[in-house]
Amino acid sequence: MWAAGAQQPRRAGLALAAAAAVAVLALAAWRRRRPPVREVLFFPSPPSCTEALLAEAAGLGTTARPCPCPLPQGNSSLSRLLRHLLSARRSLEICLFAFSSPQLGRAVQLLHRRGVRVRVVTDAQYMGLPGSQIGLLRHAGIQVRHDQENGYMHHKFAVVDRRILITGSLNWTTQAIQNNRENVLVVEDTEYVKPFLDEFERIWEEYNPINYRFPKTTND
Amino acid sequence: MWAAGAQQPRRAGLALAAAAAVAVLALAAWRRRRPPVREVLFFPSPPSCTEALLAEAAGLGTTARPCPCPLPQGNSSLSRLLRHLLSARRSLEICLFAFSSPQLGRAVQLLHRRGVRVRVVTDAQYMGLPGSQIGLLRHAGIQVRHDQENGYMHHKFAVVDRRILITGSLNWTTQAIQNNRENVLVVEDTEYVKPFLDEFERIWEEYNPINYRFPKTTND
Repeated sequence: MWAAGAQQPRRAGLALAAAAAVAVLALAAWRRRRPPVREVLFFPSPPSCTEALLAEAAGLGTTARPCPCPLPQGNSSLSRLLRHLLSARRSLEICLFAFSSPQLGRAVQLLHRRGVRVRVVTDAQYMGLPGSQIGLLRHAGIQVRHDQENGYMHHKFAVVDRRILITGSLNWTTQAIQNNRENVLVVEDTEYVKPFLDEFERIWEEYNPINYRFPKTTND
Repeated sequence: MWAAGAQQPRRAGLALAAAAAVAVLALAAWRRRRPPVREVLFFPSPPSCTEALLAEAAGLGTTARPCPCPLPQGNSSLSRLLRHLLSARRSLEICLFAFSSPQLGRAVQLLHRRGVRVRVVTDAQYMGLPGSQIGLLRHAGIQVRHDQENGYMHHKFAVVDRRILITGSLNWTTQAIQNNRENVLVVEDTEYVKPFLDEFERIWEEYNPINYRFPKTTND
């Protein structure tokens, strides 16, 4: 009886591990079977409320508490972009010339709090401008690196879980989202994702702060 | 004898038509068989000589007359971009925020002269700046339309022969090509090409000059 009782938690543990393995295999098989994500988003995206989307991603259960603001909550290019970003579970690489959208900034901070490894590369000239989200991201503990070059770090892309590439003409600013003609491709094909990941890692290493150069002061 | 002699040119004509039909079918079969074009280009692209490429495309037979300039003539991101553009045989749609690169401007004019139907959409604020290619394109007889909006026409894409999409962060300026961190995707998948073509046609119609608004003068 005693020996049988000790085996019960062990059996339960084995069953749980087997169930987890089956779930992982099923997810992998589903990913292999389903067609890759291929989406094109166009902007301007009309002003819309993304509170429910962000609260849901933060696990605040907004189903019972709809946002009281008067903005429409429908499916917009911005909400589609947010959904793709918020699907991150493990990693998020961001390489952006300009980043001042409060909604996209909140989404990135939320992912960081959820344990997603977020890394940001940006342009030195733009990051200090009023409204930039870069200071807030750094304050939240997110790693940010920037250029020290004459040219602009003009990329506008992100990679979700090393699997989904988000790229296009869109800087992540409210001006661009609400007023400009812009495009964003959401792409899962490895032939496109891998070169962008390699480009990110290349820039990430080049912009390592140990390589930053500081002008000599007159006291030197 | 007379009747037989009259049939000879007719037979030659039929043989020629059959050969042309076979060639068209073979080209279509080759296109179906070969994998779609999928390329990612990164910039900055170091200064390089594109004279041979442009002269070859213009049919000037430069093989015997290599360019005497000291710049390297190797395979660069700019030369790859030029090659994709110069592959146009029927149509070229261009939707660009900023267009000031003389090399890309020459390529577009060359295609226009070769009988390719070129249409350009651009941003009103940028097109009048010094160095812009837009005036030269218009002068060459190429159709150009521009926005009258508060936001920017910030797209940076082109579609070759309604088949190949060229899109990314790159404005077609020498500054961007030679100094900035930029990306360009070259894509043949219909799922990406069609939405961009639709977006072009939408903007082309919206920016039709018959819709332009002109401010009232004090004499009105």
